[in-house]
Amino acid sequence: MKRLQSLILFSIGLFVNTIYCLDNEIDVKYEPNWESLDNRPLPQWYDEAKVGIFIHWGVFSVPAFDSEWFCYNWAAKKQKNVVDFMTRNYRPGFTYADFAKEFTAEFFDPDKWAQLFKDSGAKYVVLTSKHHEGYTMWPSKTSWNWNVMDVGPRRDLLGDLAISVRKTGLKFGAYHSLLEFFNPLFLADQSTGYKTQEFVKAKVLPEMKELVNTYKPDVLWSDGEWVADDKYWSATDFLAWLYNERYNPGVIQNRKFENAMSLDRNSWGFRRDVQLDAYLNMWDLIEQLTKTVSCGGNLLINIGPTADGRINLLFEERLRDLGSWLKVNGEAIYSTKPWKHQNDTITPFAWYTSTDKAVYLISLRWPDNNNEQELGALDPTIVSKIELLGVSGELKFSPKGKGTVVTYPPLTPGTALKHAFVLKIYTK
Amino acid sequence: MKRLQSLILFSIGLFVNTIYCLDNEIDVKYEPNWESLDNRPLPQWYDEAKVGIFIHWGVFSVPAFDSEWFCYNWAAKKQKNVVDFMTRNYRPGFTYADFAKEFTAEFFDPDKWAQLFKDSGAKYVVLTSKHHEGYTMWPSKTSWNWNVMDVGPRRDLLGDLAISVRKTGLKFGAYHSLLEFFNPLFLADQSTGYKTQEFVKAKVLPEMKELVNTYKPDVLWSDGEWVADDKYWSATDFLAWLYNERYNPGVIQNRKFENAMSLDRNSWGFRRDVQLDAYLNMWDLIEQLTKTVSCGGNLLINIGPTADGRINLLFEERLRDLGSWLKVNGEAIYSTKPWKHQNDTITPFAWYTSTDKAVYLISLRWPDNNNEQELGALDPTIVSKIELLGVSGELKFSPKGKGTVVTYPPLTPGTALKHAFVLKIYTK
Amino acid sequence: MKRLQSLILFSIGLFVNTIYCLDNEIDVKYEPNWESLDNRPLPQWYDEAKVGIFIHWGVFSVPAFDSEWFCYNWAAKKQKNVVDFMTRNYRPGFTYADFAKEFTAEFFDPDKWAQLFKDSGAKYVVLTSKHHEGYTMWPSKTSWNWNVMDVGPRRDLLGDLAISVRKTGLKFGAYHSLLEFFNPLFLADQSTGYKTQEFVKAKVLPEMKELVNTYKPDVLWSDGEWVADDKYWSATDFLAWLYNERYNPGVIQNRKFENAMSLDRNSWGFRRDVQLDAYLNMWDLIEQLTKTVSCGGNLLINIGPTADGRINLLFEERLRDLGSWLKVNGEAIYSTKPWKHQNDTITPFAWYTSTDKAVYLISLRWPDNNNEQELGALDPTIVSKIELLGVSGELKFSPKGKGTVVTYPPLTPGTALKHAFVLKIYTK
Amino acid sequence: MKRLQSLILFSIGLFVNTIYCLDNEIDVKYEPNWESLDNRPLPQWYDEAKVGIFIHWGVFSVPAFDSEWFCYNWAAKKQKNVVDFMTRNYRPGFTYADFAKEFTAEFFDPDKWAQLFKDSGAKYVVLTSKHHEGYTMWPSKTSWNWNVMDVGPRRDLLGDLAISVRKTGLKFGAYHSLLEFFNPLFLADQSTGYKTQEFVKAKVLPEMKELVNTYKPDVLWSDGEWVADDKYWSATDFLAWLYNERYNPGVIQNRKFENAMSLDRNSWGFRRDVQLDAYLNMWDLIEQLTKTVSCGGNLLINIGPTADGRINLLFEERLRDLGSWLKVNGEAIYSTKPWKHQNDTITPFAWYTSTDKAVYLISLRWPDNNNEQELGALDPTIVSKIELLGVSGELKFSPKGKGTVVTYPPLTPGTALKHAFVLKIYTK
Repeated sequence: MKRLQSLILFSIGLFVNTIYCLDNEIDVKYEPNWESLDNRPLPQWYDEAKVGIFIHWGVFSVPAFDSEWFCYNWAAKKQKNVVDFMTRNYRPGFTYADFAKEFTAEFFDPDKWAQLFKDSGAKYVVLTSKHHEGYTMWPSKTSWNWNVMDVGPRRDLLGDLAISVRKTGLKFGAYHSLLEFFNPLFLADQSTGYKTQEFVKAKVLPEMKELVNTYKPDVLWSDGEWVADDKYWSATDFLAWLYNERYNPGVIQNRKFENAMSLDRNSWGFRRDVQLDAYLNMWDLIEQLTKTVSCGGNLLINIGPTADGRINLLFEERLRDLGSWLKVNGEAIYSTKPWKHQNDTITPFAWYTSTDKAVYLISLRWPDNNNEQELGALDPTIVSKIELLGVSGELKFSPKGKGTVVTYPPLTPGTALKHAFVLKIYTK
Repeated sequence: MKRLQSLILFSIGLFVNTIYCLDNEIDVKYEPNWESLDNRPLPQWYDEAKVGIFIHWGVFSVPAFDSEWFCYNWAAKKQKNVVDFMTRNYRPGFTYADFAKEFTAEFFDPDKWAQLFKDSGAKYVVLTSKHHEGYTMWPSKTSWNWNVMDVGPRRDLLGDLAISVRKTGLKFGAYHSLLEFFNPLFLADQSTGYKTQEFVKAKVLPEMKELVNTYKPDVLWSDGEWVADDKYWSATDFLAWLYNERYNPGVIQNRKFENAMSLDRNSWGFRRDVQLDAYLNMWDLIEQLTKTVSCGGNLLINIGPTADGRINLLFEERLRDLGSWLKVNGEAIYSTKPWKHQNDTITPFAWYTSTDKAVYLISLRWPDNNNEQELGALDPTIVSKIELLGVSGELKFSPKGKGTVVTYPPLTPGTALKHAFVLKIYTK
Repeated sequence: MKRLQSLILFSIGLFVNTIYCLDNEIDVKYEPNWESLDNRPLPQWYDEAKVGIFIHWGVFSVPAFDSEWFCYNWAAKKQKNVVDFMTRNYRPGFTYADFAKEFTAEFFDPDKWAQLFKDSGAKYVVLTSKHHEGYTMWPSKTSWNWNVMDVGPRRDLLGDLAISVRKTGLKFGAYHSLLEFFNPLFLADQSTGYKTQEFVKAKVLPEMKELVNTYKPDVLWSDGEWVADDKYWSATDFLAWLYNERYNPGVIQNRKFENAMSLDRNSWGFRRDVQLDAYLNMWDLIEQLTKTVSCGGNLLINIGPTADGRINLLFEERLRDLGSWLKVNGEAIYSTKPWKHQNDTITPFAWYTSTDKAVYLISLRWPDNNNEQELGALDPTIVSKIELLGVSGELKFSPKGKGTVVTYPPLTPGTALKHAFVLKIYTK
Repeated sequence: MKRLQSLILFSIGLFVNTIYCLDNEIDVKYEPNWESLDNRPLPQWYDEAKVGIFIHWGVFSVPAFDSEWFCYNWAAKKQKNVVDFMTRNYRPGFTYADFAKEFTAEFFDPDKWAQLFKDSGAKYVVLTSKHHEGYTMWPSKTSWNWNVMDVGPRRDLLGDLAISVRKTGLKFGAYHSLLEFFNPLFLADQSTGYKTQEFVKAKVLPEMKELVNTYKPDVLWSDGEWVADDKYWSATDFLAWLYNERYNPGVIQNRKFENAMSLDRNSWGFRRDVQLDAYLNMWDLIEQLTKTVSCGGNLLINIGPTADGRINLLFEERLRDLGSWLKVNGEAIYSTKPWKHQNDTITPFAWYTSTDKAVYLISLRWPDNNNEQELGALDPTIVSKIELLGVSGELKFSPKGKGTVVTYPPLTPGTALKHAFVLKIYTK
């Protein structure tokens, strides 16, 4: 689908997709063409949020092997490790649909999840409402016997999570895959080179409208459009409907991107065959966050819950550690704007953000030399005061060339500060 | 759906449905209105066949409890015995769709089935291509993950049976339920009082066309139309398409009906909770056949196979016993027409059929009185000779009033003849 | 195990096993040696009963494939059809023990079974308490997690059936396999050439005593002894215990055998891969009964119920047809003794039994020649009167050589008599 | 079972059990009485090892709920949360034995596990060969159909792990529960007040001998003896057999204990219903290790793998973090002896260990006051030099009263040292 220019300009994440942020403020009438649609602004809350949680959950969480593309890698690509896994562990004739019965979600506690997300410091949550496998996480009218109510959890997972997430004050969004790898209607359209639109008419459009009308997601995160052009997907028709229907936008941001990345580097869905070093550690995660926000983006941190409804403890620990870090350093993240420099010119592990009142320097390491850090991009003449977040008192600083040398306080290994250290630079 | 008058005038069976017999002979153009469509004649083979096998097989064969309406009686009607059965034997949250995984059909041998049907003397076979549960017995494009290829047998049960049946020279037909109890699209239409046709457009019409185009059934046995009128179902549109597409009819029969009845009096699908006396014995079955054919109808004898693909041995024994009886007495059944009398006026257990050359009297019992049987409807003056099928030699007969008294030969309990005895009455 | 000469002399059945009939009348002390033990008489009820029902039910009823030796044919013999069946239908690593979970018996209604057995005319019922697979049909102390209470039905199948059977007035017996194909203790003894007796001490003897003490079976039907001698099995010790414990015998029969045969010629357990013609028809069954009783034996008719607790309808129909036949002709069977002739010398399909008051001739066919039957073994001078059971009135008879010609009454195909016809010959 | 005084004197752990360390050096003949048996010394390797890994794995890992006492808490104690869990998620009549089928262990990679244990710094590994549920983790002869080869993994989990562990140079031990909650033989003995020994004779002794003979564990960790006295368990007989059989001890330690503790404070087996804060963090773990070793004990760190054979990533991260810490600080742990003081008299978070050449001070925190730490138990006159492990150079120290003040080096938050800091105190 054609990218909405007002929304997404570039990404440093793993992939780029179309994200619709939905809001309720002013009344504009959109036409089903890109000129009109692209005028739609992005809501302010989305720009200010900076941190979101992405959740990949579905039938792929049952085999929990290889990745959330399990069905494709098994049945279409015939990837050896996946084929072997099935041969070794399942009876001949076992189908992908057979997995759905074991998507039990008996430990799913949406309030507990929502509280964890809030504790992590995230401001919004995006759940896969339907991945490429086609299984819907809500009781979709057009996905009979292939949804959460008919097979598996017997529960509206998406609906229940939306309620819990919103109770905590976070925004709720839905990821939605346009394509469905093995839906026979999709395959039939595919075989005509997408000249026919049986799938779009019978499935995609009714389903997206149902999703929007029923759950009013604050973000609609559209994926899987890459196989065909926007005409096939009836994109402009859908968007005109969407925008006119009920949602209205707020303030315009000129440049905005979202860095969607997964705590498991190699999979979005939970996989049991993971090695520990595929998981990001806290330095990796805070580095991702720092660079993304410094460049004006949001970080959408993905986790993959298990088929029985749990978030594994290592994901949880990472999110809680992030929350602890943000509790001290969040003012350098939330509601910030990119500063004129993102990355410092002399110290490569130092990144900037800014607000109206201050510039923030996020140092991904403690300075090496006697607590002294040289910042090439920071003109000392604009600085009135520097503090280290989490520590009271002002820091010494002095000019060096066009830049500034800041002296960090003499902290010991006993300090509670860790991972990355934030200087709040009060400007004159 | 409006009854096709040319097909079905009345029924002595358990219910009446719309049956489309499809043939390939002459070229007529039909319009999508009843006047035009009702002109379509019935194929000759169908009238001559007299005996068909009906097969109710589907996901309901997995619980195999109560009846093929299991899903409805459980989830909608909340019938106590069904609810109790589920509570006692399945985990909470078990869904009807969960049963499909156990529809394994591993013992299904379509050649063996077809041979059994042929041995039974039947001339055509009708399989439930889809019952009210919506599960399709072929890999339907519009029933993703709710068909035989995606969940359960991993095999085109309908296609495989069609091939085997036709190899034996029998005709193959497909039963098809229009409604689907729990299809959310159907329920949505229902909730509008059938003002909307989402279900018909997205599901019924594409599916019926796919079924017809792919398998070219000789009989299309439509059911489940009773909930709405023919307009909702787009009946005339479909029939005009159907008739014009490829199928063309043969000779017209003025009156024709089909008596669809089940060897298990109380269920069409196999049920494990049956009592032996619910099964028809051979006298019951031959009585049904006799009365039905005598009145000009076809008898469609239903059996319910098991989820693992077997026809239970008692069904098989009944069908083989029927075959043995028809081997001796079939000429009184196949290709016959109703005689001027159906039931004899004096001997109530005696029924007539006829061909151009003879009248047949099927006596459902051996005569009580010294082998003598009085037939009120048989004018002795038209009779040239009477034989008992299966026994060589002519029978004595004499007039009595306007009727005839026939003397059966002095057979002993050692005879192979049984169940019902057929007189072939050669007319002058 | 050494045959008990007082019990079993020969067999015309499929195999011969050791059967202990247990009774409660007189007080004798037995020693653990064969001389003493063989003096033990057989109870009178057992000789008079003539017809028993044998039930093969166990974990083998779950695959219900090939035969009740499934586990052996799969894992030890590696029989191709069984191995293929497993490969095609089960996941790699599926074990025989895994089947037990699906031995659900949810349709098991012991009262209904018992009533059916009573209606069949049987006088005793023998259930496999444990077959060669080792799974016990009662909650055995020495078979933890491999019995009906721990895995599968969660119900004391043997205990519940014993109660129901006895309520109807029938006797209840237990089949018991000494060997267990894959019990590691048995295999360890086997590997020493049965020099060690770990299995017998830890399993066989405690288990048989528990079985006897708990359920007090009227018949203990021991099998599986053939692999080793009676010393290994501690046979004399067990029997001395058994006889002295509580059971005491009644009247002595000099010659007695039991013809154990299965309604499915090729399997004792229910098997789904059966062909109809492997089942005995009524003529076969009544022929077996006639010949067995004529020779002084009991007929133990085997059926194999399904894993969900049903007796298939064809078995039921056979048993009910047998009951109907015995209702008319039972006096020629129950409590009879062999006559001086068993099989007639001229008419090969005619067999004799006798009581103090009459001789019975069971003709397995209706006479071919004008209802006249020549009986070479029947001296006319001893006859005072002959009747056909089920028909009132005396039959004509006349001497021919040393034998007798009997004239059967002129019955028609309408008679209710069938299968075999019994003459009651009153002797002077 | 009576405690072996030479082995276990006290414990600061969660429970105390009998542990047999087995070795191969000298030849002594033991008698089956405690006087003789208690003379047996403890092997030196065990005292020097200090860190072991305990693994609770079994059928309880399938429900993975509440704790490894699941079966007891469900069926005997009827604990509400467990009963509710079963009611909500399983069909009525589901038995504990039914879980075993799902103990699949398909991801079990013993080489990977062994490497992780080695990387953690542990020197021995103890697996539950059989827990109170009775299921054996090796193909036990006396636990037919209730062991890893017959139901579940189809693999000798214990044997395979033993091989992998020993390949890495670590010792391998087996935990073994004497009692089995629901073994009917055990229950029978229990009902006699342990007057009978059916269970011990038929199960416990043969099984322990098989375990020892087959796998030759370096440690036999006996549990579950508390229900009865040592006479019931035939303890002296077994130990005399064990010691004489093949194992011979080495050097005597006078005082030795093992602190067995679980990374999940509330369960030994993996449980899905855990909260993150039930897991020990690294400070907790190193505190446990420090105190235990300081007092002369070993720390046996327990983890619970999943039913599919994985060690969850948080357990893995804890073990790897421990390994990193031990890589720097291990010389203060391995092969040390308790010093004359365990806990410092002034600084409560400082603990001592010792070798022939040095005393080690393990400080569980960084000193609060300008990097200065006062140690009341350290007489300055015996000190020749102090170093901080992981940092080169000597530390300043000075007397204060009878004690010593040590000045730590000026490290920053950028240091790799963490959790606890070790002073190596060279003595004169």
